[in-house]
Amino acid sequence: MSLFVTFEGGEGSGKTTQINMLSSYLAGQGRKVITTREPGGTPEGEKIRDLIVQRDSGDWSPMAETLLLYAARQVHLEKLIKPALSEDKVVLSDRFSDSTLVYQGYGLGLEQEKILGISKLAIDDFKPDLTFVLDIDVRAGLARSTKRLANEKGYQSTEDRFERMDIAFHEKLRAGFLDIARQEPNRCVILDAAQDVETLAQKIREETQKRLK
Amino acid sequence: MSLFVTFEGGEGSGKTTQINMLSSYLAGQGRKVITTREPGGTPEGEKIRDLIVQRDSGDWSPMAETLLLYAARQVHLEKLIKPALSEDKVVLSDRFSDSTLVYQGYGLGLEQEKILGISKLAIDDFKPDLTFVLDIDVRAGLARSTKRLANEKGYQSTEDRFERMDIAFHEKLRAGFLDIARQEPNRCVILDAAQDVETLAQKIREETQKRLK
Repeated sequence: MSLFVTFEGGEGSGKTTQINMLSSYLAGQGRKVITTREPGGTPEGEKIRDLIVQRDSGDWSPMAETLLLYAARQVHLEKLIKPALSEDKVVLSDRFSDSTLVYQGYGLGLEQEKILGISKLAIDDFKPDLTFVLDIDVRAGLARSTKRLANEKGYQSTEDRFERMDIAFHEKLRAGFLDIARQEPNRCVILDAAQDVETLAQKIREETQKRLK
Repeated sequence: MSLFVTFEGGEGSGKTTQINMLSSYLAGQGRKVITTREPGGTPEGEKIRDLIVQRDSGDWSPMAETLLLYAARQVHLEKLIKPALSEDKVVLSDRFSDSTLVYQGYGLGLEQEKILGISKLAIDDFKPDLTFVLDIDVRAGLARSTKRLANEKGYQSTEDRFERMDIAFHEKLRAGFLDIARQEPNRCVILDAAQDVETLAQKIREETQKRLK
């Protein structure tokens, strides 16, 4: 059977690791699984990712970012996610609509009603079947994320990056994810992302299995 | 005083020529004038123009195109148009919201209510003070446009391009522009774009002067 599972959470919450572990586990059960991400997931969406993520890509307002993210999401949904679900696949996505509500809304201050209005018009407010919110203390998450980047890119010092980070902004994001999850307890599962990776993976497998029965 | 004037119309309706003529005329009167275009007008908007206009930029749905166009428009409005108007400039734009309603709505079939809903959320349905709809017979306009491209790019034959054009689609666009103009007669002025360039320019000057008094 099909299932659309999204992973949400801040920097260093370990979404990618957990998506890969769940994907391997489900594939080992003989299920058809695809993993994807936002912004991105399609060639069109990756272009939007470049526009928003790259430093030299311009000075977009929170509203313009929301419109760009929903343009990418609408294509992602119609060209990749819905077709996969109609073929009984399990779709695992690194971020989805909750991230827009959290980053552009809770984080950057755009009115939630506006974001939800665009969601309604663009994707008829399509929701995942299951969302894991990987929750972690902001400083611990940023430390993890910084360490990973240092390993990946060979930075000698990570101090600069750390100092540039706005802890208060990331606290708003964390509170936003928790707020959404508490408003939709049937869809969202909050998990402590500071715990052991394998223990966390086991909980994610159990919650996913419940929805696949 | 400030005035926001937009030029709408199909291929070969002569918008660029008329914008340049009006701009020169107003500047000659000592007015501060800026000319701009959509999609585009800002570095961010030009990136969106590339995404939508370039052949290899992906397969966007009418809804995704609408979201992209409004992302560009929101930035265009906040960073260029409104600041210019607040400095008492006359802003002349080659296309604005009407083009989205016409191309993505009347042309590609996206529901008008959805486009208007996005317009409301993105730019609070901000309207030009004056819109010129340059109306021309579809075949005559396409012939003009093709001739111009042939001159600009040195095509030996324009037959292929002509045959690829979908006359019925362009008829829908023409009807759409006329429909909008008839619904908003205070804002929109329909002009016969087949007439002599100087005669047309004179009418545009007169209509613009009326609003600047």
